[in-house]
Amino acid sequence: MSELRHNPITRQWVIVAENRGARPQDLVVQQVIQDTAHCPFCEGHEEGTPGEVLALRSPESRANECGWRVRVVPNKYPAVGAASPQADSSSAGFERDDITVLPGLGVHEIIIESPRHLTTVTQLSVAQFAEVLTVYRDRLAALRNSGQFSNAVVFKNSGAGGGATLAHLHSQLVALCADRSIYADRSPALRESGDCPLCATIETDSQRLVTKSEHFLAFCPFASRFAYETWIIPRQHLPRFEETASEILPELARLLRAVLVKLEATVKSSAYNYIIHTAPFDTTGANHYHWHIEILPRLSNLAGFELGTGCFINTVSPEHAAAALRDH
Amino acid sequence: MSELRHNPITRQWVIVAENRGARPQDLVVQQVIQDTAHCPFCEGHEEGTPGEVLALRSPESRANECGWRVRVVPNKYPAVGAASPQADSSSAGFERDDITVLPGLGVHEIIIESPRHLTTVTQLSVAQFAEVLTVYRDRLAALRNSGQFSNAVVFKNSGAGGGATLAHLHSQLVALCADRSIYADRSPALRESGDCPLCATIETDSQRLVTKSEHFLAFCPFASRFAYETWIIPRQHLPRFEETASEILPELARLLRAVLVKLEATVKSSAYNYIIHTAPFDTTGANHYHWHIEILPRLSNLAGFELGTGCFINTVSPEHAAAALRDH
Repeated sequence: MSELRHNPITRQWVIVAENRGARPQDLVVQQVIQDTAHCPFCEGHEEGTPGEVLALRSPESRANECGWRVRVVPNKYPAVGAASPQADSSSAGFERDDITVLPGLGVHEIIIESPRHLTTVTQLSVAQFAEVLTVYRDRLAALRNSGQFSNAVVFKNSGAGGGATLAHLHSQLVALCADRSIYADRSPALRESGDCPLCATIETDSQRLVTKSEHFLAFCPFASRFAYETWIIPRQHLPRFEETASEILPELARLLRAVLVKLEATVKSSAYNYIIHTAPFDTTGANHYHWHIEILPRLSNLAGFELGTGCFINTVSPEHAAAALRDH
Repeated sequence: MSELRHNPITRQWVIVAENRGARPQDLVVQQVIQDTAHCPFCEGHEEGTPGEVLALRSPESRANECGWRVRVVPNKYPAVGAASPQADSSSAGFERDDITVLPGLGVHEIIIESPRHLTTVTQLSVAQFAEVLTVYRDRLAALRNSGQFSNAVVFKNSGAGGGATLAHLHSQLVALCADRSIYADRSPALRESGDCPLCATIETDSQRLVTKSEHFLAFCPFASRFAYETWIIPRQHLPRFEETASEILPELARLLRAVLVKLEATVKSSAYNYIIHTAPFDTTGANHYHWHIEILPRLSNLAGFELGTGCFINTVSPEHAAAALRDH
């Protein structure tokens, strides 16, 4: 019989039903790569993006020209943006009966992770991936320090199945200015050190452990929503990814890359998302947060059941998923 | 500038960002149809499914043989099921610290909506679709009346983009026995008549109206999560779909079919979900519920932003979506 498992951090229910993994399938989705001759993220095409916000580049090179290794640019098609100078009345937001509207204020950036037209992050070396993580950290830290934003999320869409629309390796950062919680806030569930469910995982989740290093741990959560879902956490109760010390970023890059290599080998697909969950910027006492990276493989499409009930069906138990990932 | 809109019923935030509709795309997903020669849902292949629970069939025909028009069978690969006779201790469920597990008790049924190998519900006539709705209603009513289940959902996955794995026209019903709310419960938001946000929609949402009939209304919600998302509601504040009178089911079939025809013509795709939201079975006073059907077009994949924040990005404003649907 299947099991209903509750994830106290995402506050979502998951039906673990392994028997469904065997069901027949005559409709499948396939990834199709269209024209990439004019990829705006390739080195030499810098004019195809807005001017860079940050770049790791060789000392002799100049901004918005060749010679970079990792490059951050504003999204040309942003989900949120700066207030327009001629702000109309609606851009102030309003609340009336059951209608609530806020202006879409924030920044939406693209982190281009290689000057070459690579399509999966596992094609990067550990050293290159460590530079990518450094850029994630530095952009989050700069946006937080500006005092203008309430919270931010860094995420990667890998493969068409992961919702990527451009093949060239990149991640995204969306920071919001909002006077209330727009992003589903995990703070209430991620309690203070000593009572934190992620800290408890470190002690108890050996059955679902994927791999670990001196400062980090990778495991399949007890109530994984997706087959082979894996979370990476610092072993110490730390609220903010953007405060990670430079010395341990290469260790994190090695671990995250190793998990993604295991995942791609196990499921024969690079369709996944990863998301960096860090404490909201606007909390002064964020000790109740434990930052983490969620890796969500996208082997099948979310369907009416998930969208109708908010509950997930997972056809691979986290225990079997962790064992398979450990073996690769 | 984009807008952040809040949906009080789903309690989700949506970023309406029309500028993102123009972004380039070199990665796309395509639906692929594999072998359908042995479709278990086609007439004449009745032995490919478990025995039928209900069927509309010609009087001279026999159960689990040819001669049916709509057929309901248990899912061969169910997400939830009956308690096994040799239930082990884990099947009783347990709660310890942050771990909560319940047995996956319930039923998971397939409603096969045509004996022919049709692949979109708009290929049915209004009369045929009315029979399908009658079967949805009668199965929900029977499961509720059995007193064994706490709540149920009927949903359709259309197209690979909508999460369908078998092409032959079908919907699904999942009913649970659980002592707590597993399905995200909309009851708190759907208040009593006079104070109900869906009732208020009937008066105020003319800009987002798609079409209406004597007893029903179709509109794009103010905070639509998906481009061209459309909801259908009874104009009267009624909590339970399964109590819909037989006389008005053909009217509902005509309206729902008309909206799906408009949608397929507007977006040139039959990738969508629809979900019937009815009051939980186990509420005695359900006057705070207003049943509704949500139609969720699946033109792009949900990605890291949605899965990381619980917030959606919609590139077509509901006002423009409704205008386009009205025009088709």
